[in-house]
Amino acid sequence: MAKELKNFTKREDNYSQWYNELVVKADLAEQSAVRGCMVIKPYGYAIWEKMQRQLDDMFKATGHQNAYFPLLIPKSFLSREADHVEGFAKECAVVTHYRLKTSPDGGGVVVDPEARLEEELIIRPTSETIIWNTYKNWIQSYRDLPLLVNQWANVMRWEMRTRMFLRTAEFLWQEGHTAHATKEEAEEEAIRMLNVYAEFAQDYMAMPVIKGVKSANERFAGALETYTIEAMMQDGKALQSGTSHFLGQNFAKAFEVTFMNKENKPEYVWATSWGVSTRLMGALIMTHSDDNGLVLPPKLAPLQVVIVPIYKTDEDLARISAKVEPLVAQLRGKGISVKYDDADNKRPGFKFADYEVKGVPVRLAIGARDLENGTVELFRRDTLEKESVPFEGIEERIVYLLDDIQNTLFRKALEHRERMTVTADTYDEFKEKIEKGGFILAHWDGTPETEEKIKEETKATIRCIPLDGDKTPGKCMVTGKPSAQRVIFARSY
Amino acid sequence: MAKELKNFTKREDNYSQWYNELVVKADLAEQSAVRGCMVIKPYGYAIWEKMQRQLDDMFKATGHQNAYFPLLIPKSFLSREADHVEGFAKECAVVTHYRLKTSPDGGGVVVDPEARLEEELIIRPTSETIIWNTYKNWIQSYRDLPLLVNQWANVMRWEMRTRMFLRTAEFLWQEGHTAHATKEEAEEEAIRMLNVYAEFAQDYMAMPVIKGVKSANERFAGALETYTIEAMMQDGKALQSGTSHFLGQNFAKAFEVTFMNKENKPEYVWATSWGVSTRLMGALIMTHSDDNGLVLPPKLAPLQVVIVPIYKTDEDLARISAKVEPLVAQLRGKGISVKYDDADNKRPGFKFADYEVKGVPVRLAIGARDLENGTVELFRRDTLEKESVPFEGIEERIVYLLDDIQNTLFRKALEHRERMTVTADTYDEFKEKIEKGGFILAHWDGTPETEEKIKEETKATIRCIPLDGDKTPGKCMVTGKPSAQRVIFARSY
Repeated sequence: MAKELKNFTKREDNYSQWYNELVVKADLAEQSAVRGCMVIKPYGYAIWEKMQRQLDDMFKATGHQNAYFPLLIPKSFLSREADHVEGFAKECAVVTHYRLKTSPDGGGVVVDPEARLEEELIIRPTSETIIWNTYKNWIQSYRDLPLLVNQWANVMRWEMRTRMFLRTAEFLWQEGHTAHATKEEAEEEAIRMLNVYAEFAQDYMAMPVIKGVKSANERFAGALETYTIEAMMQDGKALQSGTSHFLGQNFAKAFEVTFMNKENKPEYVWATSWGVSTRLMGALIMTHSDDNGLVLPPKLAPLQVVIVPIYKTDEDLARISAKVEPLVAQLRGKGISVKYDDADNKRPGFKFADYEVKGVPVRLAIGARDLENGTVELFRRDTLEKESVPFEGIEERIVYLLDDIQNTLFRKALEHRERMTVTADTYDEFKEKIEKGGFILAHWDGTPETEEKIKEETKATIRCIPLDGDKTPGKCMVTGKPSAQRVIFARSY
Repeated sequence: MAKELKNFTKREDNYSQWYNELVVKADLAEQSAVRGCMVIKPYGYAIWEKMQRQLDDMFKATGHQNAYFPLLIPKSFLSREADHVEGFAKECAVVTHYRLKTSPDGGGVVVDPEARLEEELIIRPTSETIIWNTYKNWIQSYRDLPLLVNQWANVMRWEMRTRMFLRTAEFLWQEGHTAHATKEEAEEEAIRMLNVYAEFAQDYMAMPVIKGVKSANERFAGALETYTIEAMMQDGKALQSGTSHFLGQNFAKAFEVTFMNKENKPEYVWATSWGVSTRLMGALIMTHSDDNGLVLPPKLAPLQVVIVPIYKTDEDLARISAKVEPLVAQLRGKGISVKYDDADNKRPGFKFADYEVKGVPVRLAIGARDLENGTVELFRRDTLEKESVPFEGIEERIVYLLDDIQNTLFRKALEHRERMTVTADTYDEFKEKIEKGGFILAHWDGTPETEEKIKEETKATIRCIPLDGDKTPGKCMVTGKPSAQRVIFARSY
């Protein structure tokens, strides 16, 4: 490894520090001058762009359109929906003035006290309120429904303890906000988008997820039901990776949004909202990466293949380049993103280390000896395996390899999750097992009180009530009261 | 025209009102509950997305990468660069608090006075300051240069008089921020991006532009040179459509950004920045649209072709659909976006009017009679021409037509601009001609004082000193002092 990449903390020594170092060393993001806000660096942003593009295609394929609503929300809007204000009004950025002026003492600028807003504005922590205030004008009749809108935007929540990607004051996300004529349609939509998220997580991020329903305690502020996809990180902690909310008629009532139904009678509109954020970057990193740096599933890697020439003389380089350039063109023709790194101001060893820490899935190295032998050195980032293979037919091998890496990463993550998923039938057993991390399937009596007690005593929360799998009833491990099915407990991010 | 589309103000009666109505009736945007901020509706956003995608491809093709920097900027950053603070610190949204609390009287929420920020934060009006503060850590050596970064983001400027797309408090834009080792490279970059903007305006928006340099009065706050593309709207007013700034070493000096050059000596970094915004939506609308609504160049139309069946019976509809569906597939195969609108809850007349007001470039209508005759009715939005043509070979005709509409729109806009561009040799002649609108080529002595006098007396500003065209020297029309070349004056948006 090159010099600046050494001294990488190992996962088993300090998982949290390993993550923080990795984010910086792989050039993904860094802290900014503004508390709790990060700078997403070009390499990190390129991964986010690949996620965005794929999700956006999936949203459009399910009939959604993008739009854009204001960044700022009048303070009074937050109070309209009783649960919502509880959840979101507390820690948020408040705009109170609209002008600065030169400081009277001549040094810099100060807030102009005369430019105070009549009503303060909040930087959106989420946009249900301003969007439903807008939908009031868009919806009159059942013919205007369903309304299937998504927004890509920045939002802000004044978090006290922040970690890059996982929890930042400002973050990037998409928020879907849909309006429907019936309860059934809205519920179907919430499930449809949960499935889109699960498909994206599994097929693109190579990250297995469990689809489920949140308990009342963990529900979105203002929702009747919150659906979630939950993933397990390598340290056995859960990470909530996307949520989809059935909002009932709560926001329609708060903002007076009614429609004339087919019988020409007014009814309140039914709603959903759903979102994923740059938090997925944290999930992606923590699912696959290792002590050598980032590991990326090929479908989300900005650079899938890198080719490094090993040479001493300009003549060697010319011969290697002549051999490599047609391969680069062939790979690009197959839609593979490839870079031929013949920069002469960095040594091959430095390049190897840099691409390794950045998680480029496949690396080829080719030298004068390879030219003679008709070979090339092939390195796969996920298993760190290196082998000398024939140059002939290398492009088919790469196509196969990218596919294999994608599948291997998913299988590995799934095996890890299965290994780290256990059941507990008594509270003592639970307390012992939770210390080892992972998901614990246990019976719960369905009350917020019991959930709260478990959380206080063990720091574990109910991640979800799984939609699929074993539905056998039982008895609550804490109270002995009836339980409809086992639910998933874990400590979480 | 359908009912709600009637009573459209005509351009010649009130151009400004025509524009405001068009934005709403074509479903592009609307005012929001927050003063000066608009909601970009799905149809308007779909056009913006097409612009974004094309510009982003062009930025990447010229070596740029995207990244993301914080929304909020510490107040003190704005004061670091003397000119910049003058230009931007004045009218901006100021975040002073980070928490709300339940109102003591129980009604709603109020700002928590205990949650006051030590230093106020400004919602970015532009990001030079926070980005150069970040670049300080990214740049050590000439090997780190050039740094070619772009950001897609929302920004905020507290404008007093706003108009949708043209001037709004919050708007969407891209801002490129590049760092270079030499003055020459930075100047080249600024010109390169000016050319990218001009190419985009002409080839995609079908909007002719004049490339030029801004006078000192009109320069970006903190720039040594501002390059601009200027377009002419149908009312003869100018619209600045994109700017590219050569920033010299001003921001490097303000934020202490130096690099070790090849001789291992420290030097300040050279900078550019360049941006276009949702203002381009206003430019697009005002360049091509007519008294019937929006007119879109096919390359930026979310929907390029719409097909409307005209039928009385379900059997007719089935026969028409059988004929149309293979055509839809063929057109899509050629990358054309097409919609077959067989919705049965709207009359054909309503559909025609709706697609006309939304500027769909090509409309086909097909009825039972057409099936018998082997014909189809073809309507092109730009010229409003309607003709009955053979169904046979219609897909080639559409491909040709989309191309022809794109070219016709550009030619029409160019002819309009040429017709409305005149010269003036005396100030009296200038004063007379400026009343008729358009661009006036006149000699100017190069001083801010003369420019200011002309602006006060005629409301016309120097749009730019053109880079191309006639460079014959002359005498200032106001002072008689020497002038290096004619410059372009106009009233502007």
